[in-house]
Amino acid sequence: MILTSEITVDVIDVTGNDQYVIAAMKTMKEVPHPDASDRGRIRYLMEHRHGTPFEHNCIIMVVHAPIFVWREWHRHRIGFSYNEESARYKVLDPVFFVPDRQRPMFKVDDWKPGRPKFLTVDEFKHDNANDLLTTDEKYVAICADMRDSYEESYATYKKQLARGLDPGLARDNLPVGIYSSCWVTCNLRSALAFISLRTHEPAAKYVSYPLYEIERAGRQLEIIVAEHFPLCYEAFCDFGRVGP
Amino acid sequence: MILTSEITVDVIDVTGNDQYVIAAMKTMKEVPHPDASDRGRIRYLMEHRHGTPFEHNCIIMVVHAPIFVWREWHRHRIGFSYNEESARYKVLDPVFFVPDRQRPMFKVDDWKPGRPKFLTVDEFKHDNANDLLTTDEKYVAICADMRDSYEESYATYKKQLARGLDPGLARDNLPVGIYSSCWVTCNLRSALAFISLRTHEPAAKYVSYPLYEIERAGRQLEIIVAEHFPLCYEAFCDFGRVGP
Amino acid sequence: MILTSEITVDVIDVTGNDQYVIAAMKTMKEVPHPDASDRGRIRYLMEHRHGTPFEHNCIIMVVHAPIFVWREWHRHRIGFSYNEESARYKVLDPVFFVPDRQRPMFKVDDWKPGRPKFLTVDEFKHDNANDLLTTDEKYVAICADMRDSYEESYATYKKQLARGLDPGLARDNLPVGIYSSCWVTCNLRSALAFISLRTHEPAAKYVSYPLYEIERAGRQLEIIVAEHFPLCYEAFCDFGRVGP
Amino acid sequence: MILTSEITVDVIDVTGNDQYVIAAMKTMKEVPHPDASDRGRIRYLMEHRHGTPFEHNCIIMVVHAPIFVWREWHRHRIGFSYNEESARYKVLDPVFFVPDRQRPMFKVDDWKPGRPKFLTVDEFKHDNANDLLTTDEKYVAICADMRDSYEESYATYKKQLARGLDPGLARDNLPVGIYSSCWVTCNLRSALAFISLRTHEPAAKYVSYPLYEIERAGRQLEIIVAEHFPLCYEAFCDFGRVGP
Repeated sequence: MILTSEITVDVIDVTGNDQYVIAAMKTMKEVPHPDASDRGRIRYLMEHRHGTPFEHNCIIMVVHAPIFVWREWHRHRIGFSYNEESARYKVLDPVFFVPDRQRPMFKVDDWKPGRPKFLTVDEFKHDNANDLLTTDEKYVAICADMRDSYEESYATYKKQLARGLDPGLARDNLPVGIYSSCWVTCNLRSALAFISLRTHEPAAKYVSYPLYEIERAGRQLEIIVAEHFPLCYEAFCDFGRVGP
Repeated sequence: MILTSEITVDVIDVTGNDQYVIAAMKTMKEVPHPDASDRGRIRYLMEHRHGTPFEHNCIIMVVHAPIFVWREWHRHRIGFSYNEESARYKVLDPVFFVPDRQRPMFKVDDWKPGRPKFLTVDEFKHDNANDLLTTDEKYVAICADMRDSYEESYATYKKQLARGLDPGLARDNLPVGIYSSCWVTCNLRSALAFISLRTHEPAAKYVSYPLYEIERAGRQLEIIVAEHFPLCYEAFCDFGRVGP
Repeated sequence: MILTSEITVDVIDVTGNDQYVIAAMKTMKEVPHPDASDRGRIRYLMEHRHGTPFEHNCIIMVVHAPIFVWREWHRHRIGFSYNEESARYKVLDPVFFVPDRQRPMFKVDDWKPGRPKFLTVDEFKHDNANDLLTTDEKYVAICADMRDSYEESYATYKKQLARGLDPGLARDNLPVGIYSSCWVTCNLRSALAFISLRTHEPAAKYVSYPLYEIERAGRQLEIIVAEHFPLCYEAFCDFGRVGP
Repeated sequence: MILTSEITVDVIDVTGNDQYVIAAMKTMKEVPHPDASDRGRIRYLMEHRHGTPFEHNCIIMVVHAPIFVWREWHRHRIGFSYNEESARYKVLDPVFFVPDRQRPMFKVDDWKPGRPKFLTVDEFKHDNANDLLTTDEKYVAICADMRDSYEESYATYKKQLARGLDPGLARDNLPVGIYSSCWVTCNLRSALAFISLRTHEPAAKYVSYPLYEIERAGRQLEIIVAEHFPLCYEAFCDFGRVGP
C-alpha cells in the first residue's frame, strides 16, 4: 500500500500560445510573430472578459489524484474532456491519500462553513496547550486511522474480487481517498475558470475557498498556463483572477 | 447505519410535453393542441436524429444514490445541471449501499470486460456445486463484509470529525458506497442520451452494458420520460433507443 | 413588405422561482415555501458567484428578430437551446428591420471601435449644423435606402424561387436585416450571462457595449427574469450584473 | 467586388493522432508508439460509440465562408469554439458567393423539403426542353441577378457608412451571401459529429441532407481528419459515419 499526499498534473501536450489569442481575436490567416502590441491587446480582452479568443488552443494532461478530487474536478463541464480509469474494468492500485504536515487541517475556533479556515499542525500546536494529546501526536493518530481504514477497505475489496464478484460492486467499500488517473483536456479559457475557482488568493476579485487538494492540482495547472501563455497569465492575475 | 439497495429519482417538476417538440420544430407562436399528425412528425425527428426540438423542456429531479453512481452520472456534461450535497459543509448520514439478491453480481465463466455479464445469487447457485460455501452463504458474507467495512469507515470518519479535523479531510476514508443527494436538471434530449447509455436493452441499435445501479436510476428517468413525453418515448424505443 | 424596428420575446413557459434556487443549493427534497432567509442566501450565492443553483429552472421563449441579432444570440452556446425557422424549407416573409428615431445611430466624433458610442437623430441634430442635409432628412434617407435595398433583394429572391432554384440558394442575396423566428430555451444562469453581456449599464462591474438591437431582446429577457426570480434579479443588479 | 463559390478551411494547427485516442482510453502516462492493436481498439470504440477518448486532441482552423454557412455552423455548440470577424468593428470586404455549375440547384419534379434533391445545370438541361430559356441561360441569369443584388446592397452599405452611420446598422442590408472569416477550434469527436451531419453519404446509417455549401466545408474538415487520424477516420466510415 502506498500512502501519499502528492497530486500530479503531467502535461501530454500544449498547443497554442499568446499569439494564438491575438490571431483568433483578429481572425488572422496565420499566427503572427510576437509583437509589442500583444500585451496590451491581451490585457484588453482579459479586463473586459472577452473570452472566446482564449479558447483556440488546448492543454492535454494526465492527472493522478484521489477520487475526492475527481468528484470536484468532474463538475467542470464546459471546455473539459475526461477519460478516467474505471474500477469496473481494472483492479485499482492500493494508493491512498494522507495529508502532509503542511496541509491546514484543524478547524479554527471561529470556523464558518462558507469560508472554511484551518490551521496546520505547527500553527495549531500553540493553540492547543490544554489538550491530552500534543498536536504532533494528533496528526500521527489521524494518519494512522486513515491508514488503518484504507487497509481494511482494500483488504475487503480484494476479498470480494477473489469471490468472483462484479468488480463494479466489489469496489463499493473503497474510500474516496484512493487514487485514480485521468486524462484531462481543456483550453486556456476553461483552465482559467478552473484556476479562478480552485485556488485561494486573498487579492482575487472573487475569493474562492477551495479544497486544499484540488488547489494543489490547480496550482500545477496554473504553472502550465503561466509557462505557455505568459501574457494571458499576467493579465489574468492583474485583473483579479476572474476567468474571461 | 442504514443499509439499502434503493436508489430514488423523485420529480420536482417537468415542463413540456410532446406538443412542445412539435411547436419548437415548427417555430410556432404557441404550443398547439394535440393533433393526429404529431406522432408522425415526432417519429420523423427521432428516426433522423434531428435533436434540437427535444431540448425545449425541462425535467427537474432530486436523486438519492451512492457516490459510485454519481461518479458516472456527473460525467454527463451537456444539458445536465447538478447540485450535490457536500461533505465539506455537512456531516454525511450513515446510509450505505448493499446489493439485493436480484443484483447480478457473480462473474460468468467467459466474462469479458467490454461486455460484462453477471449472474444473480439464484442464477449462480446452480453453477456452483463444488464451492465450499453455498451461493446463499457467499451472498451473506459479501454483504456482511461490506457492512463491516462501512461501519469501520464511518466510525473513523466520526472520530476524525471529533478531533476538529477539516470535514473535507475527515471524509477521505468514507467509501464510494455512501449515499449522497443531488438535484439534477436536464432536458428530454439529454435525458434520452442518458437512458440510451445507462440502460441495457439487447434490441437497442447500440447496446450498452451499464453499471447495474446507474441503470436503476436510468429506468426511473425512463418512466418519467414515458409518462410526460409518450410519443417521443415510443419513437425513441421504436428507432433503437438512440439519443436524437 | 413590413418594415419594423420591433423585436419580440414572448414567453412560452417559465419553470422555477427563487425558492428553487434555495432548494437546489440545499439539496432539499422539495421546493420550500418562501422564507425570510431566502434573500440573504441568494445574495450570498450571487455575490460569490456560486452559479450552479441558478440552473435548476427553465425559460422557454419564442423570439422574432432580424438575422443580425440571431448571428450574435446563437453564439451563446452553454445553457441555450435553439430552433429557428429555415429558409431551406420555407419561404421567408418580407419583414425587415429599420431603426426607429430613438436608436442611437450616428457616430460621435471621438468614436472608438471597442466602446462604440452613437447619437440619436435628435441628439445628433444639434451637432450637425454645417451638413447639407438636416439630420431628419438624413434619417429619412437612411431608412429609404434600407427599404429600397430590402425591396430589391426580396424581389430577386422571389424571382429565383420562381425559377425552381433551391430555396437554400435562392435566399443567398437576402439581407441580414430580414426577420426570423426562433424558439429559445435557457435557464436562469445562462439568461443572466446573456443579460450581462447584451445590455449596457454604466454601473456594471464589466460594462458591455452590445448592439442596440440585441439589447432590446436582452431587456425583455431581463423583465422576464425580474418577474419570475425577483430575489435573484435584485442580487444580480446589486452585485454588478455579473453572471454567477 | 469578388464573386466566388470557393469555401476554404485552412488548418492552423492539429494536435493529437490515433495514438492519443488509445492513450486516453487506457489512461496511459504517455502517448504510445503505433501498435498493431491500435486499429482494433479504435474500431471497438467507434462501433460502440464510446466517444470521450476522441476528445483529447484539437483541430484549429481558419475558415472563409458566406454568412449563410456560418448561420448553420455556429449552431454546433458543443466542442466548438469560434471567433468571427464583426461588421460592427470593421468594414466587410465585397466578397460574395455565387454557385458554380457543379452545384445541384434546380428542384427535381418530386422535390420534398425533408430530403431535398436538386439537379446541376448539366443534369437539368435535358429535362428542360420546353422552357423559354435554356438551362445555361437560366444559370447565367441566376448568377447575374445575384451579382446585381449584391452590388446594389454593397453600394448602399458603403453609402450608409459614409453618412457616419453605426457600422452595426449600416450592414443590415448586406446579404447572407457575403463572406466572413472565422477561427474555428474543435476536437475529433465534435469534428465527426459535424461531418456526420454536414455531409451526404447514401450509405451512412443516418443519411443527412446538408446544404451544399456547408458540405463543401465538411468535406475539407473530413480530409483533415482522415490525414491526421487515419484509423479513427476509417472506423468512422466503416461504422456508418455516426459520430461516436
